[in-house]
Formats: sequence, C-alpha cells, structure tokens
Amino acid sequence: MSLLFKHLRIHQIFGANTDVGKTVLTTALVRASAVAKREAFYLKPISTGPIQDADDEHIIRHSGPEKERVHTDCLYRFHVPVSPHLAAQLAAGTESQKIVPDGTFINSIVSHVRRCASQASGPAHMYVETAGGVHSPTLSGSTQLECYRPLFLPTILIGDSRLGGISATISAYESLLMRGYIVDAILLFRDEYYRNSDYLKPYFSERGITVTALDAPPPKLDELTANFKSTEEYYEKLDMLPTLRHLDTRHEERLAQLASMPRRSLDAFWWPFVQHGLVKGEGDVTVIDSASSDFFSVYKAQDTQAVSHLESQLDGSASWWTQALGHAHPALTLAAARASGRYGHVMFPQATHAPALELAERLLHDGPGKGWASRVFFSDDGSTGMEIALKMALRAFSVRESLEGTDRKALGVLGLRGSYHGDTIGAMDACAEEGVYTCEWHNAKGYWFDPPTVSIQQGRPVITLPAALAPTAPSDLVSSESISWVYDVARRLDTPLADEYRAYITKTLRNLESSGAPRLAALVLEPLVMGAGGMIFVDPLFQRVLVDVVRGPGPASALDTPWRGLPVIFDEVFVGLYRLGMQSTIPLLGVAPDISVHAKILTGGLVPLAATLASDAIFRAFYSTNKAEALLHGHSYTAHALGCEVANETLRLVEQERHSEAWVAAQARWEVASGTPNTVWSLWDPDFVQTVSCADTVAEVMALGTVLSIKVKDSDAGYVSQSAQTLLQTLKIAGTEASELPQFSIHFRTLGNVAYFMTSLNTAPETIRSIEDKIWRALQKSS
Amino acid sequence: MSLLFKHLRIHQIFGANTDVGKTVLTTALVRASAVAKREAFYLKPISTGPIQDADDEHIIRHSGPEKERVHTDCLYRFHVPVSPHLAAQLAAGTESQKIVPDGTFINSIVSHVRRCASQASGPAHMYVETAGGVHSPTLSGSTQLECYRPLFLPTILIGDSRLGGISATISAYESLLMRGYIVDAILLFRDEYYRNSDYLKPYFSERGITVTALDAPPPKLDELTANFKSTEEYYEKLDMLPTLRHLDTRHEERLAQLASMPRRSLDAFWWPFVQHGLVKGEGDVTVIDSASSDFFSVYKAQDTQAVSHLESQLDGSASWWTQALGHAHPALTLAAARASGRYGHVMFPQATHAPALELAERLLHDGPGKGWASRVFFSDDGSTGMEIALKMALRAFSVRESLEGTDRKALGVLGLRGSYHGDTIGAMDACAEEGVYTCEWHNAKGYWFDPPTVSIQQGRPVITLPAALAPTAPSDLVSSESISWVYDVARRLDTPLADEYRAYITKTLRNLESSGAPRLAALVLEPLVMGAGGMIFVDPLFQRVLVDVVRGPGPASALDTPWRGLPVIFDEVFVGLYRLGMQSTIPLLGVAPDISVHAKILTGGLVPLAATLASDAIFRAFYSTNKAEALLHGHSYTAHALGCEVANETLRLVEQERHSEAWVAAQARWEVASGTPNTVWSLWDPDFVQTVSCADTVAEVMALGTVLSIKVKDSDAGYVSQSAQTLLQTLKIAGTEASELPQFSIHFRTLGNVAYFMTSLNTAPETIRSIEDKIWRALQKSS
Repeated sequence: MSLLFKHLRIHQIFGANTDVGKTVLTTALVRASAVAKREAFYLKPISTGPIQDADDEHIIRHSGPEKERVHTDCLYRFHVPVSPHLAAQLAAGTESQKIVPDGTFINSIVSHVRRCASQASGPAHMYVETAGGVHSPTLSGSTQLECYRPLFLPTILIGDSRLGGISATISAYESLLMRGYIVDAILLFRDEYYRNSDYLKPYFSERGITVTALDAPPPKLDELTANFKSTEEYYEKLDMLPTLRHLDTRHEERLAQLASMPRRSLDAFWWPFVQHGLVKGEGDVTVIDSASSDFFSVYKAQDTQAVSHLESQLDGSASWWTQALGHAHPALTLAAARASGRYGHVMFPQATHAPALELAERLLHDGPGKGWASRVFFSDDGSTGMEIALKMALRAFSVRESLEGTDRKALGVLGLRGSYHGDTIGAMDACAEEGVYTCEWHNAKGYWFDPPTVSIQQGRPVITLPAALAPTAPSDLVSSESISWVYDVARRLDTPLADEYRAYITKTLRNLESSGAPRLAALVLEPLVMGAGGMIFVDPLFQRVLVDVVRGPGPASALDTPWRGLPVIFDEVFVGLYRLGMQSTIPLLGVAPDISVHAKILTGGLVPLAATLASDAIFRAFYSTNKAEALLHGHSYTAHALGCEVANETLRLVEQERHSEAWVAAQARWEVASGTPNTVWSLWDPDFVQTVSCADTVAEVMALGTVLSIKVKDSDAGYVSQSAQTLLQTLKIAGTEASELPQFSIHFRTLGNVAYFMTSLNTAPETIRSIEDKIWRALQKSS
Repeated sequence: MSLLFKHLRIHQIFGANTDVGKTVLTTALVRASAVAKREAFYLKPISTGPIQDADDEHIIRHSGPEKERVHTDCLYRFHVPVSPHLAAQLAAGTESQKIVPDGTFINSIVSHVRRCASQASGPAHMYVETAGGVHSPTLSGSTQLECYRPLFLPTILIGDSRLGGISATISAYESLLMRGYIVDAILLFRDEYYRNSDYLKPYFSERGITVTALDAPPPKLDELTANFKSTEEYYEKLDMLPTLRHLDTRHEERLAQLASMPRRSLDAFWWPFVQHGLVKGEGDVTVIDSASSDFFSVYKAQDTQAVSHLESQLDGSASWWTQALGHAHPALTLAAARASGRYGHVMFPQATHAPALELAERLLHDGPGKGWASRVFFSDDGSTGMEIALKMALRAFSVRESLEGTDRKALGVLGLRGSYHGDTIGAMDACAEEGVYTCEWHNAKGYWFDPPTVSIQQGRPVITLPAALAPTAPSDLVSSESISWVYDVARRLDTPLADEYRAYITKTLRNLESSGAPRLAALVLEPLVMGAGGMIFVDPLFQRVLVDVVRGPGPASALDTPWRGLPVIFDEVFVGLYRLGMQSTIPLLGVAPDISVHAKILTGGLVPLAATLASDAIFRAFYSTNKAEALLHGHSYTAHALGCEVANETLRLVEQERHSEAWVAAQARWEVASGTPNTVWSLWDPDFVQTVSCADTVAEVMALGTVLSIKVKDSDAGYVSQSAQTLLQTLKIAGTEASELPQFSIHFRTLGNVAYFMTSLNTAPETIRSIEDKIWRALQKSS
C-alpha cells in the first residue's frame, strides 16, 4: 500500500509534540509549492475541534497568491477538541457510528492520494498533516506512527522549539526511526532564548538529516481576534524555497536510487540458490523498498502517471519460512532495540544474561523441549544447529559404544530420502546425495529410506507408498479415510500398515548391518514434512514406527532417561513452533527425540538464531573433567542478546496468537471438514484445499498449519523443473479487480513442480481468502 | 559503574517532557519513603535556575512529617534558567570554568551514591531526578539518556498528562528502551479532560509496565505566592504507598533474579567451548546484567552494605573478538531499529534492499574487496562464510580442471598448521586434525605447513622458524631488526629468507604431488594472525611467498583477472576490518586473494552476519543456464536487513575512528618506537609491549592493532593448559586502589598458555593504560 509517484512528491508531516507549529509550517510549505507553480495538495486525514479553528481552514485562509493551485481536504472531521480516539469514541457513542478500523482509514487515504495523483496535470506536491504528536492515537486507538506505516510516506518532522523541545524532538525522531520511516527534514521555529535549533542542527547532521530553523509566527492572539494580516505578512516573508528544493531533491534521489537498484544488485550480489545465468535482467530483480505485515512494498517503474511506483506484493513464502508475525512487527523492533541498548552482544561461554536464560528456560519448560530436554546450545542458523546436533549424537554414540580412532570416523546416520538439514557440509553429509543438491566435499554418510507420503488427490486423502512397500502393503491404505485419521498416529499403531512398516524397517536395518555399510550412529528426521526436499508430507506413522524400531522395546524416552538404540534428532527448524499449527511435532508422533533443532520462526522472522536442545543423557556424554572431551563448538555471536530477546517476544506473542479468533475459526473449519475434534488443521480453508486437489493441472495438494503445497502435473519433476512457476505465473501480476482489499501480486517460491504458499501465524483471514481466490483464478486460467 | 545495593533502592526519575510534574511526584515519593520509615535520599545532579525555584528546595520545603529522614543534594548548580548545556557554556564563558565531561559527571554521582549507601543505616530509598525531558542535554552537551547510561539505574518515567502527552510519554519510553533501561513505573497526573492515563494504562500494561495516575497538585500560582499550605495539603492527601510497594517489589525481584541466575544457567545452558565438568559452581558463572562501552556490569553477591552488587568488568576479549565500538553503542541500536522497522527480514534470492546493496558496494568498492572482488555472498557467521568460500574454490578448481565424479570429491586444501576457520564440519575439514579440536565427522583434507612466526622476546623482535627450515635458514634472520621491518613484506621479498621460503615451499609441493596425497584445490590462509589456533603471528613474508609460489609467475591477481595455480582464500574473519589496525591485510601482503571472508567486526559486535567476497573469475565458474550448476547454498536469514544496516553503520563509524586522536597518537608512538613511518602499529603502548616481553614469566609477546598476546612460559603448552589463566588470575579481581578511573576487574580469555587482550577500535586510551598497568602488576605479583 506504499505510495510513490514520480510527478507527485508526497510528504507526511509529524509533530514532535502538539502545538509545535505543524499547521503553520505546513501552510508555509503548501504556499511555497503553489508559488513555485506546483499543484499543492493538502490532506488532513483527521481533524478534531471546531471547523473555524481547523488546520485545513487555516491553510485555505493563508494559501497565498497562487491559491487556485492549492487543494485542501479532510477525510474525518470531529467537532470536539480532543484526541481523535476520544472524538471517535464520543461520536460512536452519540451518533452510533462505528469506530473506523485502521485498514479502512488507510484505504481512504490511499484512494484520496490516487485521485490527487491522477488529477495533477504536472509536477505536484502533497502534504499529509497528522494530528498531535507522533504517537497520538488515531480513530481506532492505535498510534499514528503504527497506523500510517503501511503508506510508508517520507516524513517531515516539525521539531519543538520550546523548553524541553530538544528532548521531545529527538524522542519523536527515534520513534519514527523505529518504524523505519524516512525522515527527509526537520523544521522548527527559531527561538533566540532556548536555541534548540543550535543543538539539533549538528545532532541531526551527524545522522544525515537537515534541520531548518524558521522564524516563528506572530502570537496566536492575532489569529484569534481574526486579525489575519500580521499572519499573512509572516507567511509572505518566510523563505521556504531552500526547504522545497531539499524535499524535491530527496524525492528525486529516492526515485533514482530505486531505479538504479536492479542494475547495481545484478552487479554486486551473489544470491543464494540462484543461477545468475538464468536471471534475465533488471526485471527479474525484486526491489524491496520496505515491508509490513505480510507484504513487501516493491518498486516497479511506471509510465502511467497515476500508478504508484511501489506495489504491494504478498510474501508468499513467508520469506523463506521465517515469518511468524509479519514484517517489521513493532514489538520485535522494540525487543531488538531493548536488548541492543542493554547489552549489545556479550560473550557467552560460562556467562549468562537474562534474554538467553529466559529463552532457554522457555524452550525447555514451556516449549518443544518440555518433558525430555535438559540443555540448550545456541548457534546462528538451522544448519549450524544441525551440525551441533550431529556432533552431539555421534559423540554420544561413540562414547556408549566405546569407539576409538578410525571407528569413530566411520559413522553414518539413518534418515529419509528427500531430507534437508542445511547447507554447511556436516549438515549436507546427513542427507543422501541425489540430484543437484551437492558439492565437492559433500560425502553422504548413512542410509535413507524412501518414505510413504501423505497428500490430497482428487479430493481424497492418499498415502503413497514407496516402491519397496507398494507391492506388499494392504491396498485399502491408499484410503478414503480422513486427514485426521492419517495424523492420529496412536490409533494407527496397531493397523496392518504399521506392521508392514515395522517389518520393512526391521528387515532393511538387519540387511544393512550385514552389508558392511557405515555403522549407523543416529536417526535424523524432519518430522511430518521434509520442506526443502519438495514439501514432502511424510506419513507420520512411518516416522513413529521408525523411531520405535530404532529404539527397540523399552519405556518412551523422557527426561533423565538414557537414549536407546540410536540417539534421535528431530530437525524442527522448519516444521516447529506452529509452522504446521502445532508447537512441536512430539505430541502428534507420540515420541520425543534426544536432540532437537529450532530456528526460523524462533526469532519471528527478524534475525538469525538457532537452538539445539539435548536430553541429559546426551549432555552427560561430554561431561567430564577433561576439557578435550567438551563439545568444542561455538560461534562468535552465540546466544546474542538481541536474537534471544526477539525470540522471547516472538514466543510470547505466538502464544497469544494461538487463542486468536482466526485460529479458533480455522480449527473449527477443519474439525467440521474432517468430522473429528482436535484434528490437525490449517489456516488454509479445507474446502479450498479439497477443490484445488481436483483441478486438472494439479497432481496433489496438502495443507497443515500455515503451509499449503500444490504439486502440479509434470513429467519432469526435478529440482530444476519450472512447471509450477509457469503454471501459476499470473500470481506475480497485481490484480486490477475492484476489491475491498488493496490489490497485490504474490511473491511465491517453487521447488521444482511444487508450488508452496506460507502465511505468517497472524496473517489476516481475509488476506488468506484473497490468496486462495488468486490461486484458484490462476489455476483456472492455466487449464 | 552500574550501581545496585540491597538495602538502598535507587530510582532515577526521567520526565516525558519538561514541566510534567517530575519534582512534584519525586517529592511525593521522597515524603512517602520517609513516612514509611526509610532514609530517603534525593539527588538532583544538575539544577539550573534561581535557588528559590530549585527542585531540591521544593523537596526540602515539602519533605513532610519525617523530614529528618530526608537528605537532599545537588551536585552542579547554575543560576540561569536554561538547559544545562547552555548554563554550562555560559558559566564556562563568564567564569572560565571548564565544561564538565560526562565521565567526571558520572563519577561524581557514583561517589555520592556510594556515600549515601554507606551512610544509610537500614533499608533506604534514593531518587535521582534528571532535568527536563529524557533527551535533554547534560553539561557536556550529550543527552541525558546516553550520559546516565553507565549507571544503569532503574527508571521511573513521569508521563505527560497534557494534550499531546500520550505521544510524548510513549516516545520518551521508547527512547529509554533503546538504551536498555529498566522502566519500573510510569507515574502521571490524572486529567479528567484528556484522560491520557486511560489510554496509557492498557498500552503499557501490554508491555509489562505499571502506569499510575495521581491527583494533580494545586496550581503553581500558590507556590509562587508562597502560599505553601495548599501544596502541603496536597502532598498529605496523596497516597503513594502502593507505588512505593511496587518499587520495593521490583527492586527485590531484580535482586532475586540476579541471585538466581547462576544456578538456573548451570541447569539450562550448554555453553560453547566449555567443559561443564570443570565449572566449579555458581561462582564460575559471569552474570552480565548490562554492558556499555568496554565494560560488562557483572553481578556479585555482597555482604558489605556499602559495596554495589554490580561490578565493572572489562570485556578483555572484546566478546570473542566481535566488539568494534563498545557494547550497546546507541548508533548501532538505532541502525538495528531502523532496519527492523522498515523491513524486518525480507527474503534475498533475486531480491534487493538498500541495506544489503549499500553494504555489498561498500565492501567491494571501499572495503576489503577493493580492486579484486566483484561479488558478495552473504551468510550468518565466519564458519558459514568459510563453507561458502570453500565451495566456491573447490568448484572453480573442478571446473577449470574439468574434474568429474569421484575426482571432484577427492580434493584437499593447502594451509598452515594452527589455522582455524570455524566449527561447522566443512570449515573444520580445511584445517589439520591435531590436538583436541576435532569431532567424529572431522576429516582433514589437505596439507598444512608449519609456519615461521613473529614475536617479541626479551625486547627483541624474533622470527621463529619451524623445524623443517631452522637448520638451513640464515641465522641472522632471527633478527634484531624492528617489527616494522618484519612487516615490510615488499622489501623482504628479495632477502635470503624469502629464497629459503620459496625453495622450501616449492620442494614440499613437488613432493606432495608425487606422494599420492589428495589433489590440492585451494590455498586457505588467515593472513598475519591465526587467532583461535593460539594467536600465532605468522611471518607475513612466508604467507606472501606461499601465495606467489602457488600462483606461479604472472601478473598480480586483480579484478577481471582469472585466478592462477589455486584459488586463494583469505579468512579475514578475525584479522580484518581494523582488528589488526588495518582495514585489510591485502596491502601489507601485497597480494589479493580470489575469495575472502568477513564477519565479527563487520556488524560492530551486535548480531551475526558474514560476507564472502569473490572475484569475477570465481563467480563465472558457477555461471551458466543450468540451475544445477549454481552455488546451491543459502541460509534463511541471508543478508538480513538488520545485520546489513548495523554493518553499514559500523563501517561508517570505524572510518571516523581511523582519524581519531587516539589512533593518530598510537600510530605516532609506534613510529617513534620503530623509527619508521607508516609502520604496523597497535593501540597497546610499544614500551609496555617491550617491557612485558622481558618479564621472567613471559615467553613472548606480540601486539598489532587492538590485539595484545602474551605467551607465558609453560612446559605444557596445549589447548587445555591453564597456565596463562593461573598466572594472570589477579586480573579477575576488581582493584581497590584509589584512581581517577572507576575500578574494574578484567574478563579475559586464554588459549592454553597464551593470554590475549583485545580492545574495541574506540577504547579510551586511559582505559588501555589502566589495563596495561593491571597486567603489569599481575605479572609482578606472579613472579
């Protein structure tokens, strides 16, 4: 919803406080624009107080010699001289009006600005004057800074020239900055006694911001007694031209910067997972100017005057599966700032700080480690977290089996084909080498089963068995049972299919032992879904049986219980922390691992941080009085306070989300659809999933939690396949249909012939419905 | 310098603006404390304006029925009613006083508070009232929030109850939060018209902060006309007891939290590089309550009433070599907040955003990539950055040599013994397996030379040759030449030692080729210093000759020039970006690599981020129209905007630091000591380094840039040696000598028998002198 027009330079005016001269200086700007022969649009989105005192009235009165170029508007007007949220409450009480939600309010500004943009015949200026101070409440009761944020308009801050004004101006600036706003200028009145501008000029110059001090107007008394003459003289004398030029320059620089970014990026970056030889040119570069909630604001050069150069683009992959609460969530920014301000980063070995300790305890006692984990080892990303997990498991195995020398070096892992644990070489070595995902030093160590998978095909849930199992398995298991039955692992444990799985796994492992293959030292699983491998929804029963067989008979692993068979690692980097609608996959599978790894959502989608959790038995394998036997692993920024604090805030907010209206409603829909209470569920609509699975071009569909996966029919189904991209390419174009929702395109990622879509945990239901609608239309067009 | 006493609860009072009622509500608190039978200390550090209007006078006047318990003080008093910085300037002009620097000002508060703490016989309260708003300037012209930060006192924010006060209160809070302050309570006046407290209560309750609205005092007029009676009645009626109890509770909770942290940390963490079996107990846990500049504020339980529970501890390892600008640098917090507020994290493949682009261009055009690098690949830490570098180099070699299949998998690297490139397994595999630093899947692939090393022994610079070279090399090279000669690589290239190096390397490589060892596919170096390997200062001539021999004859590698011989990787994670006093080691060595890796200082010591730079020739090895040939590597948070923005701010500030007085003076000292202009240099004093090298217990010393390394004499010199820790253990105890500088202990790290000390790039010279003094005393005590 961000707005940027070449011919219409727009600035929003924020005040460092109430009564600092916002309207006077905005009037001066509007006049100056008109005098400079620009159409000058003034918008006061909300005005409170009697009409004769209203800011827009003042502007009209003093719009100067070129007043026919001046256009003023007010969208919401209340006659009580109180804060907008109180005025709106009063009006709602007495006039039974509904309080205007932020979305509606912002949309009304967007519509108005678009009208002005098409109305302006030549170069024009627009000034949007906010009310009160930066954080003054809006109609809905949110604060202005937050409410206006999706518009992402460049800002002029009117500083406070009175006693205390230095502090007020700096604090207001910092609040603006925490929402990412571009502050193009600070204007304030000159005051010879307090000389705030003398202090503020060098202060902000160091921060790259121009401060301009302007003569103060005559006393307000003149205005009140309707003696407008001295005020008019004041405006006539005020020289706003340098400010106007500065603002024009900033506007042009911003446009030039955005236009230059594709070329410069093509010249400087080496992108991850990108074949640069396939990038066709500047048009293939997504220029992200800002982001908020689920949307990128993306630069698109425009020829049409009335179309914004910034387009809303839905972040359809939740930015590589990281987003939990939407982009630029203010609470996460505050958490990051709080930790940075208190600690910066402090070294971690044998040290402690509150954010890390709180996070560790949360993960162990109220999080995925509950009931089985005793320790948290921090690192930087899922891949490093997995390297640590592997080092833990291999050492625990070596110690228990009393392996020495080369025996320790010849260990492998057991896993599933299609798994992915990250891109560092140790994490790669825990995966089968197949297809293109490999490198010179990749040396796959272990054995990987072809797993049975779950999907919805032609409206029916289906378990697809691998070739090794298909001929023998009971055919009714490719079943019409519901999805909730598939995920009811406890009930399925005594089905014939479970017996098949058990027999098959047992036999395979026995054959492996006698084959001279590397000795297996750990079981490594991505529970429920193998993400990067192609959004493969594994039959959870198979994973459960695999763990059971590996562990052999005995009590379920729990806190203070030693591991049995092989140490079991759950890589929950992608699947954990509610990505699939559940905090952890442990309750569903009915078994806990000995080691688990968490990242991505952990920090709400802001900064890298990973946590490897371990049982006490694993920890004890390294515990001695010999330093050489310690886990000699660490990264410089281990347990960085900023990341830990952001993680704590994320987990706190996510727990609130669990009880949100949207989640309760979505869960109810899936219960209805499956006819089962407490079933697995998704934010995606079950009927939509059902319908899409019947589309001609679609092979299968699956949805859990925030994830929707659509596999398209394609004979060439490898990683390099472009079929899903091609089929759904119309999603990349912003719609033009009239709709309540702002129009947006969808930025989505594919894995060969699989297109997937992933929301945040708090994506608005109407946004999800709108994506579903767009996907459906795209499928219709392509068939 | 943070202060925390069990019996003396201290709060600082900040105002959301001037004239919001700070003094009135502080008076109410002081009275209430006295009425509750607590000694009540009131401190106004700076007062401006006529004495009869001064805040402390108001307190004295209205200190209530227990006034003998009330103690008021003011440290700096100015009679002009303007902002302190103006008052100080005026006084400096007319009374030729010097303006008080922040350090002196803070020390005077510390001394005063300590006096009060020892004076208080029982439980007591103290209130420190600041002046104006949160960001109002102090005497020196810094803003209060920054200036008071080292004290890290819990805060009471006095909210603004007037029109605009909602915004002023929230903004002031956010500015406090950005400096990490603990805000224990917000107090403000009740106002039935604006009802700010109705809005602020739920707003801050969500953020865990209690807002209390209190009756407003009678009009100020009464006070001005010396009719104190109504004011006195007002205070009598005000019920501050709930607030007092809340503040007491918060104080007790904070103490209890700190006291509980060692035990809880021992129970929850698995620390990096720590043998938990050697951690003796709670006393071995460093509890970091906050940090600022070069100091941790560390919790120490105290029995002595007058001693603070928080102790200043110098971060002697620059928090594992990450710190560049000191902890909690406000500019880095603002950068982090700005990027978080604008983007959060946005996905990076085929995308671009301003912070990443600016950083990439800075690294390529004005940074370590200047002249040779064409691309930046972002990742999360030095280890992942090195994995990427290795993948790049190995592939480039495979492609040029047209290797396929198993030939591609059998490649090794050439390096130096003692090198370290991180803890992920690929990075480990690029290092020799020796000593304890290994794991099950570590498979060292390559050949590593024993390098000649540089040190200062008994006051003389010495080059120590490895066994393989020692018998044949000219003996005069273990020389009395200056350190600047050792690092003048260009001049040394035609010395006999260079010829020795060349012959030795050439012969060794020829023997390797014929030995059936893995084919070497890359040269991997930590230029100048191998950090984690034991602060090994390698003879730079050896590294230069090694690169020359590997590349063979031909032009020096530069932009658009293909690599020759083997791709060369410089791991500058530790040594780069001025850690050793130079932006990059390239000019000193006189050769550029084909790939380089940067992290640690890159983000100024705040969050993880790494950059791998590559030449165009390396990039081209992956460039095709086949996706499978791309560099298939990426991490979720690749090029996260927060990290990139912090890096940009860091590099900007570091460039300013280069021209600082401290750097210029240090460089001059080293030029004088070595008798050579433009020599290598250090922030450590050359005479100190010289002197320490002569100490009985010391084997050798070296210093470059911010790094000081002291190797102690010890027959058992491995990684597990504790000799350096033992020798210098007295550094861990805070001094008690009288000194201008606040007393502090030193948190330092050792690598076996090597103790090292590392400053930030902006550590104050007086702090460094003080560390030198402490080290010297510790060495004296131990000998």
